Amino acid sequence: MDAIRWEGNTLYLLDQTKLPVTEVWLPYTDYRPVADAIRTMVVRGAPAIGVAAAYAYCLAALAGEGLDEAKETLAASRPTAVNLFWALERMERKAKECGGAAEPLIAEAKAIHAEDVAMCRAMGAHGAAVVPEHARILTHCNAGALATGGYGTALGVIRAAHEAGKVNMVYCDETRPLLQGARLTAYELVSDHIPATLIADNMAASLMAKGKIDLAVVGCDRMAANGDFANKIGTYSVAVNAHYHGIPFYVALPCSTIDLSLADGSGIPIEERDRDEVRTLYGTRTAPESVEVCNPAFDVTPHSLVTGIITEKGVIYPPFQENLQKLFG
Amino acid sequence: MDAIRWEGNTLYLLDQTKLPVTEVWLPYTDYRPVADAIRTMVVRGAPAIGVAAAYAYCLAALAGEGLDEAKETLAASRPTAVNLFWALERMERKAKECGGAAEPLIAEAKAIHAEDVAMCRAMGAHGAAVVPEHARILTHCNAGALATGGYGTALGVIRAAHEAGKVNMVYCDETRPLLQGARLTAYELVSDHIPATLIADNMAASLMAKGKIDLAVVGCDRMAANGDFANKIGTYSVAVNAHYHGIPFYVALPCSTIDLSLADGSGIPIEERDRDEVRTLYGTRTAPESVEVCNPAFDVTPHSLVTGIITEKGVIYPPFQENLQKLFG
Repeated sequence: MDAIRWEGNTLYLLDQTKLPVTEVWLPYTDYRPVADAIRTMVVRGAPAIGVAAAYAYCLAALAGEGLDEAKETLAASRPTAVNLFWALERMERKAKECGGAAEPLIAEAKAIHAEDVAMCRAMGAHGAAVVPEHARILTHCNAGALATGGYGTALGVIRAAHEAGKVNMVYCDETRPLLQGARLTAYELVSDHIPATLIADNMAASLMAKGKIDLAVVGCDRMAANGDFANKIGTYSVAVNAHYHGIPFYVALPCSTIDLSLADGSGIPIEERDRDEVRTLYGTRTAPESVEVCNPAFDVTPHSLVTGIITEKGVIYPPFQENLQKLFG
Repeated sequence: MDAIRWEGNTLYLLDQTKLPVTEVWLPYTDYRPVADAIRTMVVRGAPAIGVAAAYAYCLAALAGEGLDEAKETLAASRPTAVNLFWALERMERKAKECGGAAEPLIAEAKAIHAEDVAMCRAMGAHGAAVVPEHARILTHCNAGALATGGYGTALGVIRAAHEAGKVNMVYCDETRPLLQGARLTAYELVSDHIPATLIADNMAASLMAKGKIDLAVVGCDRMAANGDFANKIGTYSVAVNAHYHGIPFYVALPCSTIDLSLADGSGIPIEERDRDEVRTLYGTRTAPESVEVCNPAFDVTPHSLVTGIITEKGVIYPPFQENLQKLFG
């Protein structure tokens, strides 16, 4: 399963806002609508955003447009995922090296894409080792093939554990307000014939109390140097509940998601999204129009609630600050 | 604000499945459709279900129908809220006393209704005393005027605290899957000009971490003798998170919601509802049709996570088992 393709100098994105009901691939030959696609979550998930932005940068090069402006426009699309900035900076370095020629830039974007899939596979192999036999695993949002170049980070771990015959059930938080767990994670799992049960986010704690969850694993949009990390809103509640119930809580991410320039999670910018994402559902108003709404897209989970960090280089345990430094050292 | 009226030997229910978009009052002269209305949540909330069932019992008496059968049909409508059984038993006692005559039964149902409102007012007065000045209060689901004979249990506490000038903000969990927080609680608060902010359930923990919640108060569908209680699914997660963040967590309920026949929460039957409540939204499918779904309507919060129990007779603190006994003694 994948959601990003490059064919004939055109970027194709699987419209994730339409899943699971319809599968529509949208073609892009201009970088500006790609920035819109990132903003409106046609493509979402930190690694996937990075890959899409790298290809969009190539579209600007192919059209002979200003690469600085393209970088700026793409970087302004969403604020939290650090992979976006990481991918654009890598493309910019390449552009300086090759004088902005399209072919080497396309090769670089393809390399970012291929490396992302390879990193997910490596994460999966490392992560599967921490999953117990007959595991009932909880995940939140979608950190799957659709959120990455392919295979997934948290879902990569689940896929690899399933390939190893270790997975009895995956519980998917539906993940309000945009339902990525219901629409995307459940869709990926069912497509891959991995046993899946969909729950409302507020049911996870109750399942934990009943002893039905052995392990939780989530993705990550940005991690600070001390292991604090931002991920989809609701991740923090999963972490607190896992901690209370003594359930191992893992976060899976490629090293490109780690932002060593931030000492801790307090520096991660958190995107506040439109109020109508909470106040309406599929065009039906669900609350009084005049009610205030809070709609942060992410929350920050402190490293103290994390059992282990699963990366493409291996699984890191506390003390995270020290061990993350070593990883980069 | 109210949702249950008795006029001209007809029971009128405000259709809560249609709120907040339209206000439709449905008339009932037969008890059977009232059982359906309870099942489909036209009327919901433990105290309101009790009041509606009492009036429905009168409809059977007015029609000269078998009261035993009416009681049985109504009691089978929903399994968790104990007020339903309590109200029907009280009506049955009255029926034995008056030989099943309609007028005394109607007077008894009206008394149950009026007592419920009076109890909510008393709960409000007791509960407002524990609310600090400038309070930012979190509530889950709807334990409001719509869930009771009027005024509300948890929302009664909030209303009384607001009347005392103590409420800066009420954060309403939207309460998936049926969105009673968005549709009903936000509607009640906005109608009463109480400052309200709607959030997805998974955002509450993050607000707590940011120091934005001073107190949580919820309603209750059934409480065991030791203070364990069932309430809308998601309540337990609020309780765990409040505990982790050191935030006072209160439950407000009339004594009729306490079931001394149960030693602890493990004996409370938990209703499992239709999978499509989670898998579809307003007719739109949000997940693959073949995905499994868990959809318990309630969860059980252990008394160890409860700061205080707000009743019409006063606020009870630990040890709950002992102090609940005293309340009934």
